[in-house]
Amino acid sequence: MVKPVDAWLLPDGVADVLPVEAARLESLRRQLLDHFARWGYALVLPPLMEYLESLLSGSGRDLADLTFKITDQLSGRMMGVRADTTPQVARLDAHCLRSEGPARYCYAGTVLHTRPMGIAASRCPVQIGAELYGHAGVESDIEIIRLTLDALHIAGARELHLDLGHVGVFRALAAAAELDCVTEASLRDMLSRKSLPEWHEAIPARVGAAHQAALLPLPSLAGDVSVLAEAKVLWPDAPAAVSQALADVQAVVTAIQQSHPNVVLTLDLGDVRGYHYHTGLVFSVYAPGHAREVAKGGRYDHVGEAFGRARAATGFSADLKQWLDFSNATAATQGILAPAGDDADLRAAMIQARAHGQRVVQQLPGALLSAVEAGCDREFFYADACWQVRAVAS
Amino acid sequence: MVKPVDAWLLPDGVADVLPVEAARLESLRRQLLDHFARWGYALVLPPLMEYLESLLSGSGRDLADLTFKITDQLSGRMMGVRADTTPQVARLDAHCLRSEGPARYCYAGTVLHTRPMGIAASRCPVQIGAELYGHAGVESDIEIIRLTLDALHIAGARELHLDLGHVGVFRALAAAAELDCVTEASLRDMLSRKSLPEWHEAIPARVGAAHQAALLPLPSLAGDVSVLAEAKVLWPDAPAAVSQALADVQAVVTAIQQSHPNVVLTLDLGDVRGYHYHTGLVFSVYAPGHAREVAKGGRYDHVGEAFGRARAATGFSADLKQWLDFSNATAATQGILAPAGDDADLRAAMIQARAHGQRVVQQLPGALLSAVEAGCDREFFYADACWQVRAVAS
Repeated sequence: MVKPVDAWLLPDGVADVLPVEAARLESLRRQLLDHFARWGYALVLPPLMEYLESLLSGSGRDLADLTFKITDQLSGRMMGVRADTTPQVARLDAHCLRSEGPARYCYAGTVLHTRPMGIAASRCPVQIGAELYGHAGVESDIEIIRLTLDALHIAGARELHLDLGHVGVFRALAAAAELDCVTEASLRDMLSRKSLPEWHEAIPARVGAAHQAALLPLPSLAGDVSVLAEAKVLWPDAPAAVSQALADVQAVVTAIQQSHPNVVLTLDLGDVRGYHYHTGLVFSVYAPGHAREVAKGGRYDHVGEAFGRARAATGFSADLKQWLDFSNATAATQGILAPAGDDADLRAAMIQARAHGQRVVQQLPGALLSAVEAGCDREFFYADACWQVRAVAS
Repeated sequence: MVKPVDAWLLPDGVADVLPVEAARLESLRRQLLDHFARWGYALVLPPLMEYLESLLSGSGRDLADLTFKITDQLSGRMMGVRADTTPQVARLDAHCLRSEGPARYCYAGTVLHTRPMGIAASRCPVQIGAELYGHAGVESDIEIIRLTLDALHIAGARELHLDLGHVGVFRALAAAAELDCVTEASLRDMLSRKSLPEWHEAIPARVGAAHQAALLPLPSLAGDVSVLAEAKVLWPDAPAAVSQALADVQAVVTAIQQSHPNVVLTLDLGDVRGYHYHTGLVFSVYAPGHAREVAKGGRYDHVGEAFGRARAATGFSADLKQWLDFSNATAATQGILAPAGDDADLRAAMIQARAHGQRVVQQLPGALLSAVEAGCDREFFYADACWQVRAVAS
């Protein structure tokens, strides 16, 4: 038992959002949901808890570790508190909504993590995101990336870096070289750690000179957009899946350079983030002053399989709380201070002011607030047989 | 393990909110938070999980049973997923915000319940509510009740019934009769069950004729506002706390009759709902077609004690999802369908339309949507060397 005096302590990675920040968070939430709506993305609100199997469907071990498990007293089955909204949207698309053509969804809601996902990360982020189901072409990847970049712009983010990768490159090279799964996992681990010295020694000679040569430069194919040209030279006879991946990355680069010329583009063709989960193009967005990425996303075409309907899918997600740092704009608090009392005329004046969108704070007898304490710049006063509004003398 | 085919099943009392309903929920959420803001209530967003001791502070056993327990892997301590936001707001008022005068807070967020709180109740309600701290007078009870009734009106609720009670009546009569705590608990249980035959026999003779006479009519002092007059006749020499309680109820009745003449008022002077928690006036609002109350609230002056700062407090809470039933208004989906393609002029036309608040859905090559499927009533077309908008032929 903690002492009562400590009852106000919060767990690590858990924080209150107090009035000024809460108003900013709510304002940003509305702006972003409106932004998604203007792009045709329909809001869905999946529940905060579900059976664990549904929550973890199609995801890797990471999500299982991040998810709080709770017992359903009604059924005796294990449930989880969602750590990610994406599998829930896959379930909705596969089962509840079943649209035939492309379908666009967005969401905003709290998720819980058993441990922080990075330095200074919250364990109760407000996850926002958008998903585009039912289209496998690069056009939907481009749409999702533009939607993300514009959302970040609305939040006030500037000087963004977009990092593009494609998990299909390593996947196709590994398949062509017929790597066994232990070797593949070991190489993938080195790629994710960018461990170059190990990498050179780890590619088994038995795959043959051509496959060795193809795999060898992979970790170093990271940098500015020139690595695309470099890759084409290095892999003249690449498997079709590699060529397609390079063409997709090229298409995204061209499209984003046109629509978002101020965004700095970097590529990492050996990107294997979320390898078990992602199936194609992946991206992360970075901003000055943020050690972690500020948004991430990509293609995960098989995510609906567990729900009986595998559809092409791409999307992004981010932590709304993290995005609050992009701007420090706070709306000045305004309002009209009303005296205590319940006469009908005052009540009518207050109703009318509020109907016009005014903030009206009424005094309570014996506990008067100053205009500053009440956040008011004006006040009601009675003159000429009616209630009128004047500025508070400052 | 469930079969994969069942992965889309949701636990009892847990549901998705799909696009049409989600848009209505979001719209209602905004309207209500704006309403609270116009009355001077500042939004706070306490976290979804905290240490169990904090979450359950000042609450009764009911809340402990309703709360999902999870282990904090970082500290090894027990945490809970909140089942009620009220104790969190008490913590904020006592520790984080520490305002000296009256302080007004509102909130809207999901809570989780281990079991449904009533027939057809959700286990993931979206709890909305408002709290007024730092003022013990009946004026703040009146403000909270008016705020609640106006919020319900905004949501489309009509023909409301307001049921008023005051836990101070039984408390004062029990104290005056010097009931031992076993007898008091037993009588309280009968009161809550309105078990009249038992009640008559359960009042011990040893309390004396005067106290017996005072306690005897309590369960029957329920009905329309005339029970107030009845109580004054029955209790001519009531303890001061009873007289004060009756005066408070009378003041609320008068105020609500003036401001909300269409609301039907009922009283229950033997109301002991939330007895361990509430300290004064309590209320519930009922609406046609809803078996459970649609909003409830009252005074709980000691709630901040566990956090080192007992302040007067009153407030209300409700389930936003339940309030969706009051209206079936849905905004007609509108929008402009744009062809696939990425030429600069089309992109500029889409940017401009969205900047004007228009919803623009762009086609994706090879997976075209009809205007109806895309929820669009207009479309972009190219003529006279520019992109223009026309109505879709219906």
